[in-house]
Amino acid sequence: MAATEPGQLDPVSPRTANLAALLRALRAGPLSRTQLAARCGLTKAAVSGLITELSERGLVRSAGLQGGGNGRPSQLVELNGASACGLALSVEADRFAAVVTNLDGRVVAERTETADVAALGLHRSMDELAFLARQLLLGDQPVGVTVSVPGLVDSAAAVLRFAPTLRWRDAEIADLLAARLGLTVDAIRVDNEANLGAVGEVVAGVGRGVRELFYLSGGTGVGGGLVSGGTILRGARGFAGEVGHITVDPSGEQCPCGRVGCLETKAGLSAVLRGAASPGDPLHDPALGVDGRVGLLKHRVRRGDQRAVAAVSELGVALGIAVSTVVDVLDPDVVVLGGYFAELGEWLVEPVRRELSARPLGHEPACRVEPSPLGTTAPLRGAAHLATERLFADPTLVPVVTSSSIDTAEAPA
Amino acid sequence: MAATEPGQLDPVSPRTANLAALLRALRAGPLSRTQLAARCGLTKAAVSGLITELSERGLVRSAGLQGGGNGRPSQLVELNGASACGLALSVEADRFAAVVTNLDGRVVAERTETADVAALGLHRSMDELAFLARQLLLGDQPVGVTVSVPGLVDSAAAVLRFAPTLRWRDAEIADLLAARLGLTVDAIRVDNEANLGAVGEVVAGVGRGVRELFYLSGGTGVGGGLVSGGTILRGARGFAGEVGHITVDPSGEQCPCGRVGCLETKAGLSAVLRGAASPGDPLHDPALGVDGRVGLLKHRVRRGDQRAVAAVSELGVALGIAVSTVVDVLDPDVVVLGGYFAELGEWLVEPVRRELSARPLGHEPACRVEPSPLGTTAPLRGAAHLATERLFADPTLVPVVTSSSIDTAEAPA
Repeated sequence: MAATEPGQLDPVSPRTANLAALLRALRAGPLSRTQLAARCGLTKAAVSGLITELSERGLVRSAGLQGGGNGRPSQLVELNGASACGLALSVEADRFAAVVTNLDGRVVAERTETADVAALGLHRSMDELAFLARQLLLGDQPVGVTVSVPGLVDSAAAVLRFAPTLRWRDAEIADLLAARLGLTVDAIRVDNEANLGAVGEVVAGVGRGVRELFYLSGGTGVGGGLVSGGTILRGARGFAGEVGHITVDPSGEQCPCGRVGCLETKAGLSAVLRGAASPGDPLHDPALGVDGRVGLLKHRVRRGDQRAVAAVSELGVALGIAVSTVVDVLDPDVVVLGGYFAELGEWLVEPVRRELSARPLGHEPACRVEPSPLGTTAPLRGAAHLATERLFADPTLVPVVTSSSIDTAEAPA
Repeated sequence: MAATEPGQLDPVSPRTANLAALLRALRAGPLSRTQLAARCGLTKAAVSGLITELSERGLVRSAGLQGGGNGRPSQLVELNGASACGLALSVEADRFAAVVTNLDGRVVAERTETADVAALGLHRSMDELAFLARQLLLGDQPVGVTVSVPGLVDSAAAVLRFAPTLRWRDAEIADLLAARLGLTVDAIRVDNEANLGAVGEVVAGVGRGVRELFYLSGGTGVGGGLVSGGTILRGARGFAGEVGHITVDPSGEQCPCGRVGCLETKAGLSAVLRGAASPGDPLHDPALGVDGRVGLLKHRVRRGDQRAVAAVSELGVALGIAVSTVVDVLDPDVVVLGGYFAELGEWLVEPVRRELSARPLGHEPACRVEPSPLGTTAPLRGAAHLATERLFADPTLVPVVTSSSIDTAEAPA
């Protein structure tokens, strides 16, 4: 169910594929060999041999006995969460963030540093990011690294093609970080923040268990991430989901992009703040940061400030049109309003639902609309999930460290 | 490369999967056993055994010798196109159509019958369609049937949920046709005409070899079909690509659907014809049929008729906005203008390309825009392809008929 990217992984041998299938099955919790055999379509003998290998690699361990319904108890096997870790990094206009997670998804360490990333430039930013990562890793070698960036990414090449807020073009993020972290380039994946936000919602947010999801993220720009069939939908060049410049009003404002009436001219944070207050108002004070300005806007809407209420109401109309369009194109199960839209969810979800329920398809709108419960952390959550994903596709990435510490025999069922 | 729907097929045994891989490899033309072994990752001994079975099922045959570059010639094997056939059917508002194709995609028989399908109703329409099919099949049993319908389809259940032009709801097309044609329900696939049009373009039109394609189809309504990663993108309920009611002008006309400024209010055929001529003009004469009215419109644009030119120019603007939106969402390699848009392609392709080249992504627009070379036959071409697809996934659907007529030995390489 978790979003993975099989296309990016090297083909593995049938034995490795079976090791991987067992490891993934154990993600949901401890299981007996008999249960593993049933879930993975393997014989119990094959499972025993494979579990021995996973144990020798340190990836699984015994988890006590399970009382059998009809007789003798079974030995349980569980994931050894601490045996490996993944590193998630994110670059935003005003901050770097890093998270180290266990194999079982638990956060081991995390840190955020504010910075003027555009002013730092690419190379010094990569120095900072690597420094942050080393502080958290404490010498551990991650099985994978995923980097979230705000821009157009060629994910196959692990290159950030263009990030307008950072003014970076063709930034070879994976190469730069691999050199700084002493890792191979193929351990590092680079992805767009909205794509990773969509994955975050699928693994840890309102999209759990969902295979078709649209994540719409509000910030200085407006971005989107798509999950279809349980994997990120990328399109031909990796730019799918770039909804910031879809037309929501052809008689609207000129957008710096060259088009007219783009979603960003109505839903980008600065456009909304301009609508909500005159120049010079504290709502425009960069010193407050994005979170501070959104918090102030929210406070004013609560208080009933007319301009703030009108600006958020217009934002709801624009999001309604944009979301309806994407829903018609993609037919998702869930639409998630992320980034700063999540903060304003109490005023945005209803107008979007209303526009969707005016749908012409002759059926109840089955598509849910929800504010992101993860807020601005969704991309980092998605990145953390994908960072360990490499190991769940190929458990032989970690070496055999000990002879098996696990009982190779199981009490007969 | 061909669009297939593996999700809909039952899992097959490893041997069957290998038979299928060989059969698919032979689609491109005759190959030797050595070549087949290399392409399918099998040993030459395995290939020989599998080819014997395919030959016993009548699906392949010897195709003479190929001069070896470095010595003795090799025996070639080829698809036996005439050994099986697929049936494609289509229902449109004003006609039924049927095509029977060979295993190699060659058309064996085809026929179109005009009819007022809405007036006939569902059951009499299915009688007519089955009658048409039996006339073409001449007693042959197709390996698969694909039915193209103009509406929302639950393709897993093979049910047409809603077809506004036919006024059919929850029509169990596969059940009704299976009973009339003496076939099992699982041999019959029902799909939306725009989805099948997209497949048609991938297998036989401007999308050959393309894995990401958007097919936009103009008719009374406006529909869309998406191919992503080489397969039809369906979304959660099978309604992906339904772009007829995306908003292209929020200050535009009220649409019967309940929304305002939908693409159909600008690009549906009757909207365009209303723009091009006053009531009472022959352009609105239903007796001319869709093709006749579009032909007349085209004639007037060529002649420079002002209203006709203006109407087609407005249509280009609306398509530009809609296509740009879908391109931002999906990032396809190719956009195909199908249905009546293809007929007017010489005036529509340029405005769409112009709007796309105003893209903000900071890269040359790599997305091609092309009129459909298949025109209104694209859905039937896609349906014909998918009708035989079942056999290419499971060659054991046809029984063993003879002992192998093929040489089991090959001249040593």
